[in-house]
Order: sequence, then structure tokens, then C-alpha cells
Amino acid sequence: MTGPEIAERLLRGELFALSRLISWAENAHPAFADALAAIYPRVGKAWRVGVTGPPGAGKSSLSNELVAELRRSGSTVGVLAIDPSSPFTGGALLGDRIRMEERTKDTGVFIRSMASRDGHGGLARAAVDACDVMDAFGFGTVLVETVGVGQSEYDVVAATDTVVVVLCPGAGDGIQALKAGILEVADVLVVNKSDLDGAEQLMLDLEDALRLRSIRRDGENSWDVPVVACSSHQGTGIDALRRAIEGHRAWLETRDLVGMRSHKRVQQVRRIVRERLEDELWGRHDDGSLESSLRASRTPYDVAHEILEPVLSSIHVAGTGRAEAGHAESGHAGSGHKGVRS
Amino acid sequence: MTGPEIAERLLRGELFALSRLISWAENAHPAFADALAAIYPRVGKAWRVGVTGPPGAGKSSLSNELVAELRRSGSTVGVLAIDPSSPFTGGALLGDRIRMEERTKDTGVFIRSMASRDGHGGLARAAVDACDVMDAFGFGTVLVETVGVGQSEYDVVAATDTVVVVLCPGAGDGIQALKAGILEVADVLVVNKSDLDGAEQLMLDLEDALRLRSIRRDGENSWDVPVVACSSHQGTGIDALRRAIEGHRAWLETRDLVGMRSHKRVQQVRRIVRERLEDELWGRHDDGSLESSLRASRTPYDVAHEILEPVLSSIHVAGTGRAEAGHAESGHAGSGHKGVRS
Repeated sequence: MTGPEIAERLLRGELFALSRLISWAENAHPAFADALAAIYPRVGKAWRVGVTGPPGAGKSSLSNELVAELRRSGSTVGVLAIDPSSPFTGGALLGDRIRMEERTKDTGVFIRSMASRDGHGGLARAAVDACDVMDAFGFGTVLVETVGVGQSEYDVVAATDTVVVVLCPGAGDGIQALKAGILEVADVLVVNKSDLDGAEQLMLDLEDALRLRSIRRDGENSWDVPVVACSSHQGTGIDALRRAIEGHRAWLETRDLVGMRSHKRVQQVRRIVRERLEDELWGRHDDGSLESSLRASRTPYDVAHEILEPVLSSIHVAGTGRAEAGHAESGHAGSGHKGVRS
Repeated sequence: MTGPEIAERLLRGELFALSRLISWAENAHPAFADALAAIYPRVGKAWRVGVTGPPGAGKSSLSNELVAELRRSGSTVGVLAIDPSSPFTGGALLGDRIRMEERTKDTGVFIRSMASRDGHGGLARAAVDACDVMDAFGFGTVLVETVGVGQSEYDVVAATDTVVVVLCPGAGDGIQALKAGILEVADVLVVNKSDLDGAEQLMLDLEDALRLRSIRRDGENSWDVPVVACSSHQGTGIDALRRAIEGHRAWLETRDLVGMRSHKRVQQVRRIVRERLEDELWGRHDDGSLESSLRASRTPYDVAHEILEPVLSSIHVAGTGRAEAGHAESGHAGSGHKGVRS
């Protein structure tokens, strides 16, 4: 099936096409780009919400309830759950996931999980592509849930419109979150398991940290991050969380939403370029060939230089417009290459 | 000062040259590659130990004591401490660091910290370069300490010879470490603050997890990861930790140490290539120009394709050897580019 064919089926509302296109995104299928181009005019209507936080903060249960709350408020929801790849966790997360799958009896909800793989950007690229597909399909909200541990997971949530960071009392999670800089990315903070001891203290700590940040940033024209208390156990706070997300949306919509999204989308261009270049380069220079080069007593910079030389020449030529790509001149290469011997 | 000049001063034992070359590594100075080439024959004698673990596990105190223990056992030590960049943590870490600085009265110890920056490989590249410099300078042990939170930090420790993962009881750290897959990279596990409640349980849990892993891996010819109990408070376990590191070294030395190191070094080649290419590409295609391209209703793949086309042509040509870099032909480009429209 070609990209435009499957795109047409997606736009007709076929779930088969939705699933297939997300798989294409995940597997970096060569026809995905054509399919995306065909559905791209329909991308941009959904509100994208990222949910992240340290392991054990209860993100899956919270997401599950947030989906129910969004449904009650009339929005359809596409969910993308990013599972860590560690074999140690497969079981535990699957348990959470099964609870979430209860929602799938509802046709206004679509749930898809995606494995967290290596740390070099392929995951975030695929996740954003999958969100585009769900967006074009017509979901009102696209919810992306990740475990907030790695750079890829961070990149995934940073690409959404509203980032919800979930913490819970105890376990030093609040402090750890501060250390990991997770606050920097939050648009809404949730203190989950708010019926537990220490929840109030955590809320105070977070509000202090936010105040400190707002002073540092001069406070001007910036979003005032709300801290919401939720308890899955007691079933409280979910409506407040939905309202906080809506509040952030309303705030963004009176500002430069298009600009903000286009700014975030630049990262997707970079991820595609990065992934494609690495596939190409390391397909041609595999571990074995690099190891042999290194064993000839050459430094990593020497070996890197050899790989880079033809590539940099072409970039220099394309950049200066002095020649067509078909007749690259290498005259620019070799002078002042930062960190690479010439 | 040229690369070879500063290299010569490093080989003469000048601390000034040691500091300067690490700064060059950190700032991706253009002359670093030449300096490294000049000192490279002296790289490879030091034993490199990575110390990592979740925030709050007491890594800095432990590293401090490990340095003292290594000095007692007769080794000189170069320390590279990777600090997270979050403004929230600067203070706390600095406190730890000051304690460590006590060691600097000893001329057999050199301590250098390096800021943890963005997540795209520059840190790990610079850290490995800095280790090479300390190694060539002549330290018997090079110790790298990172907070085990991000991909970059993971990459840094994964590049060392012996990886020590530090956990402590309470705070669910053991479970979190399992979730984050941190065990996968450990050659030695430390249960720190072993005088606290729960330490024994954590040791049992870790030993169980290791046993499970060893069964999955068939157990054949693999290193049996020891779990060492340490308490900075009581001053116990540090000698056992040193012996565990020495044990791992002895084990590796009877196996393919050269192959293992060369295998890890391949990653350094990739990091250099990646960093250099990204500097070049994004220097030429900045946020503003990418945003304008995207606003013309084009997908990220369309924009990526335009950037990639000349670069991929040159890789194809260089790879097939059909033409000199100076006369690249673009005939190969545009067909079957995975994930990029043609």
C-alpha cells in the first residue's frame, strides 16, 4: 500500500489505517513521509498533552482517570504510552496498561503503546509522528504518557502543547524531580497520591520552587504553573487537572500558539535529519570497520575525520550555493573544522 | 599555543597543560584533535572507573572515600565530576564537591568538574576526551562520577572500564534503578548507607535481580557482579569496593581488554561525527530558517529532505567509491531514503 492510499483510508476514519500508520512511524517506513504529507493539512486540531514523572508516581492510573474525565467533558482521546524497554519492568507496566485498556471498550478512545528504545532520538521522532497521525485522524485530545527518566522521554513530552508532571509524596521524588530539572518542562504540576503523608509538604516545596523560578524569570508574560492535588485512591482532583490543562490551553491560544508549535516542530526536523544521517553513516561504517580503523593506533578524531570529510564538503558547498549538489567541490573542507583534525 | 606544543607540556607533567587540555576538550577547541594525536601513544595505561547512581545515593561522599582508599593502595587518581546543569542543584552539589576538594592538598589527586549540558552527546564526548588526557598525564586511576539520570551521563560511565553503580536503601531507589535499566551497565553494585534500615533487603533484592539476569544470559563467560555494602558514616566497605574493582580489572585483563576498549571507543568516533555534523548543519539551518520552511505548510520530512539531499549524495558517492569527494554525483540520492520523501 502506498503512502497516499493509506492516508486516504485514515482520512475516511479507518482504524486499520490509524494503526498501520503509527507502525510505519515506529518502524521508520520509507512511505511514511508521503503519507504524512497527504494528511498534514488535517494535523494541528488536537490538543496534545504530555504526562510524565518519575517511576512510581502513579502516572498510568492518573492518565487512565484523565482519559475518563476528558471523555466525560466530550473530547475523544488518542493515547500514546511510551514503555521503557527494560525487561525488568515489562511486567509491572503491563499491569498498569491492562487497567487502562478498560477504556478501549469506548470507541472515542484509542490506545497505543510504543517501546522506548535507544537514547538517540528515534523514539521522540516516532512519537511525534504518531501524535500527528492521531491528530489527523480527528481525536480532540492526544495524550502522551512517558516515564520521565531519559532524554528521549523528555523530548517526547517537550513536543506536546501542555506538559503535566506527576510527582508523589515520599520517596524523595520531589527533590529528585528538582535535581533532574523536570520542573523546567512542566506546564501543570500534579501531586498525586495526595492522601498520603507528606503530600502537603511536597505541594509547599513545589510552590516555593515555582515562585523562585518565576522571580528568576522576571515573571513577565509567563504562564503561572498550577500545582494540582490528585488522588486516584479517593478519586479527587481529576476535574481540577482537566481544568488546569484547559486553562493552559486558553492561555496559549491568546498568545502565539502557532509560533510555539512551529518552534517545537523544528526539533522534529532535527530528529529526522539526525536519525537519517546516522542510519546512513553507521550502515556504511559498522562497528567492525570502525574498530579496525581505531586499532591502527589512530585516535577517534582521525577516524571521525575520514568519515566526515566528504559529508562536510557537501554541506559547505550546498550552504554557500557555489555549486550544484551534483558537482560538489571539496575546497571548503579541512579548514577550521571544530574538533576535527585536518 | 598549538596542539603539539601543549601536548609536549602535558607529557612533561605540567598541571597547566592538563587543565588547559581538558578545557579544550570541554569547549571542542579546534586544536584538541591534534593535541590528542600527540599524546595518544600514552593513552590506555590508567584504569577508568565510572561511579553513578540516582541522586541522593551518596555518590560524592563515596567517591571521596574511594579516592582516599586508592591513594592508600598506591595509585594516583584523576577525578572527573559531572555536575547536572540545573540551577536548583548547583548549591547542594557544590557542598559535596567542597568536601572532595580536601583531597586536592594531595598532589597525587587531580579533580576537575564538568557541567552536564544538553542531552545530545557533547558531554560524553568531552568526558571521554578528558579521561584520555588524564590517562596520558599518568594517573593510575581515572574516576568519573555522574548523577545517573540522563542518557549523556549513562554514556559517560558506559565508556569506562569498570562501572560502579551506587544505590541506597529507602526512597525506592533499588526499584527505580531496576526500572531505569541502570543495572544493565553495572560491573560492581554498591549498597551505600548500609547502616540504614532496609539495606539488607536491598542487597537481597539486587542479588535476586542479578541471579535472574545471569540465568537469562546463560551465565556463560560473564562477569559475576558483586554487591558491596558501604557506609560512609561508619567508614566501612571501602576496601571491599576497591577489591571488587580490582577483581573486575583482573577478570577483564585475562579476557579481551583491548577488544572491549576498542568496542567502547567506537562510540567516541560516533559522538565526534554526530557533534561535528550537527554543529555544521544547525549552524547553517538555524531555528528561524527552519521555522519559515515549516510555516510554508511543509511537513518536517519535507524540510529534512531538503537539508539531507546534498549530504546523503556525498555519503553515497564516498561509500561506493564511484567518484572523488571533489566530484560528487547525486545520482544515488532520492531513491529509497528511509523515512524521507523523494
